[in-house]
Amino acid sequence: MLAEIITIGDEILIGQIVDTNSAWMAKQLNLIGITVKQISSVSDDQQHILDALSQAEKRADIILITGGLGPTKDDITKVTLAKYFGMGFRLDEGTLEIVAQIFQKFKRPLLDINIKQAEVPDGCEVILNKNGTAPCMWFNKENKIFVSMPGVPFEMMYLMDEQILPRIKTQFKLPAIVHKTILTAGIGESFLAKEIEDIENSLPENIKLAYLPKLGQVRLRLSARGDHEATLQLDVAQFSKQIIERIQKFVVIDDDIPLEKAILNLMKEKGLTLSTAESCTGGYIAHLITQHPGSSAVYWGGAVSYANELKQSVLGVKEETLATFGAVSEQTVIEMVEGALQHFKTDYAISVSGIAGPDGGTEGKPVGTVWIAIANNKKTVAKVFNFSNKRIQNIERAAVSALTMLLNLLKED
Amino acid sequence: MLAEIITIGDEILIGQIVDTNSAWMAKQLNLIGITVKQISSVSDDQQHILDALSQAEKRADIILITGGLGPTKDDITKVTLAKYFGMGFRLDEGTLEIVAQIFQKFKRPLLDINIKQAEVPDGCEVILNKNGTAPCMWFNKENKIFVSMPGVPFEMMYLMDEQILPRIKTQFKLPAIVHKTILTAGIGESFLAKEIEDIENSLPENIKLAYLPKLGQVRLRLSARGDHEATLQLDVAQFSKQIIERIQKFVVIDDDIPLEKAILNLMKEKGLTLSTAESCTGGYIAHLITQHPGSSAVYWGGAVSYANELKQSVLGVKEETLATFGAVSEQTVIEMVEGALQHFKTDYAISVSGIAGPDGGTEGKPVGTVWIAIANNKKTVAKVFNFSNKRIQNIERAAVSALTMLLNLLKED
Repeated sequence: MLAEIITIGDEILIGQIVDTNSAWMAKQLNLIGITVKQISSVSDDQQHILDALSQAEKRADIILITGGLGPTKDDITKVTLAKYFGMGFRLDEGTLEIVAQIFQKFKRPLLDINIKQAEVPDGCEVILNKNGTAPCMWFNKENKIFVSMPGVPFEMMYLMDEQILPRIKTQFKLPAIVHKTILTAGIGESFLAKEIEDIENSLPENIKLAYLPKLGQVRLRLSARGDHEATLQLDVAQFSKQIIERIQKFVVIDDDIPLEKAILNLMKEKGLTLSTAESCTGGYIAHLITQHPGSSAVYWGGAVSYANELKQSVLGVKEETLATFGAVSEQTVIEMVEGALQHFKTDYAISVSGIAGPDGGTEGKPVGTVWIAIANNKKTVAKVFNFSNKRIQNIERAAVSALTMLLNLLKED
Repeated sequence: MLAEIITIGDEILIGQIVDTNSAWMAKQLNLIGITVKQISSVSDDQQHILDALSQAEKRADIILITGGLGPTKDDITKVTLAKYFGMGFRLDEGTLEIVAQIFQKFKRPLLDINIKQAEVPDGCEVILNKNGTAPCMWFNKENKIFVSMPGVPFEMMYLMDEQILPRIKTQFKLPAIVHKTILTAGIGESFLAKEIEDIENSLPENIKLAYLPKLGQVRLRLSARGDHEATLQLDVAQFSKQIIERIQKFVVIDDDIPLEKAILNLMKEKGLTLSTAESCTGGYIAHLITQHPGSSAVYWGGAVSYANELKQSVLGVKEETLATFGAVSEQTVIEMVEGALQHFKTDYAISVSGIAGPDGGTEGKPVGTVWIAIANNKKTVAKVFNFSNKRIQNIERAAVSALTMLLNLLKED
């Protein structure tokens, strides 16, 4: 079963936005056993869109289209789809109701161009978009389907999760597919591959192993395809057990969830609380944690102590420590983490202080130097890292390293 | 002048990586007046790549190809290009020298598959890639050019900046192009379009207006093409002035930078400092600010006061305020923001408290209810928002709303 993704609109073609939608959609399709043959971004030009649709139709069974559905006149997806399928237009009452409700909620008058948003090609089935004014349209053409969705990421994701993917699974006979993900940290991709080379070579034809490296972590994903899900589950469980036993000390968690979510689950189960004291990561660790629903059961909060004054006043770091060793030092991160435990009254705390760059480096402490400390009421551990000269990567890698250190200390307990 | 970008390889098609290369390339091409007609990601399949090349050749003058040049057998770009142009292979001495140097540096033996990396189609011109083992190949075919580059982002960027873009500018006569971006907040796309409908309709053929909405903000972008840059600058300035005058109260900044960067620039210029007191945004505002180099000149830090205990101990919110009005209330955000000003000793402060969801809503305060306060030493303003039922969007919209309120108060001063 093959799919193609077509993104319509100039924002991607002028480099204004990065196309994150297509990667997300491709991932979801792969997870249910559908191969993505091509991803295309095309301009707001009718003939060009028509050509892209007809080329995609030749190659694939499922064509997913995003973008180009807003109310302003540069959005021409709907008109072009009507032309492609030789359809007229009808007003969709369900969509009009949602549009009207949204405008009522924001106490704004319903304009003619907004009413026009409820017009759809008359041969399509409308899938109600509860999160926005642009409709989602489903077209059947012989054995192929075309689905047009808004380009706003959360609207598209909601429609895919709640409607499109379940319908695709019903309409097409897809192979059973079973995935198992093992998150590792502290070992590079090629060394990992060497460690488990014999296991990988012993995998049957229908089970693939993928290495997905990112920011000092490597996700191993076993994917099995076949007719019987129960058999696939057993096969995958057997091979994942072999792999986990072999590389035990590098395994963070044998589940496809983010590192911070694994920590939240573990701490919630044990009834433990957490606080943070961040300097160079500037709130990024707090954000990673608090993006997850239910994080407030574990995470009490913390300080973003960017200025030294806040390291002193909020965390109780001593002035002489800062003067003698500097803000980026073992002594400072230890005082930060112990100050967080004491002032925020949590069971565990994380502290980070480093030089994210691009400026601020010295010969002894170049850009990318980051000290991290983790503490509970029995133990404090601190470690220095030397990352790159790229600010955003340094922030992200420091966060991942801090969370990995926290998980290791939690496992010791 | 039209260009297309083709990305070869499965990583993008399985959703493992987001294609940031194409957005970057598209932006660079646009800046020199080249329109990108299509961006395609295709699989490691020879016939599929051949089709993509021939379709792109029909539409565009410049075809830029990335990826599929590594030493392993699944990388078939080079063989496919030789087939497409009907060429044989030759060993490129310059490339071989670089490959040999790289292996020597890492003290690794030069294998046959590595020597093969120096083989190129015999009719192409090699552009030396100083940062890696994969060569960059330039093909002229009639009046069109095809350039194949490695997919590693920094290798591609270096080749584009140093070699490809300067050569393109020499080989083709390009139009001048001028962009002007106006960031607005607090008004929807369709209302904005209605407000400036007559101005948009009066734009000459060579000036386009695009609406780029995102999270309660809309970017307006005027793009002008022509022969004389100075004339275009004048034309664009005239229309952007008209637009800004018309929608003045919604204009955040007339520049193509993020909101928080505009705030940092303004505050740095005025010598002002900022702190944050975040509850439901959980450090996201701090992260938005601190991702920018130089933010420490303005931003002193703050608290992520997720638990009520931290609202009291770190920010000085009164227990009776929390008991009487709740954590999500005007009284609480005002005490939070004034506590931040006082404890963190900054000129301005932001506070946010809300129900991000998906749980925790009540009838009186449903999920999406967010109180935001901004203060300086003369004035405190607080406002309530009713966002959606989606956690991540609520966090992002609350951050954007808080920053917009801060910018408005800064402008009053």
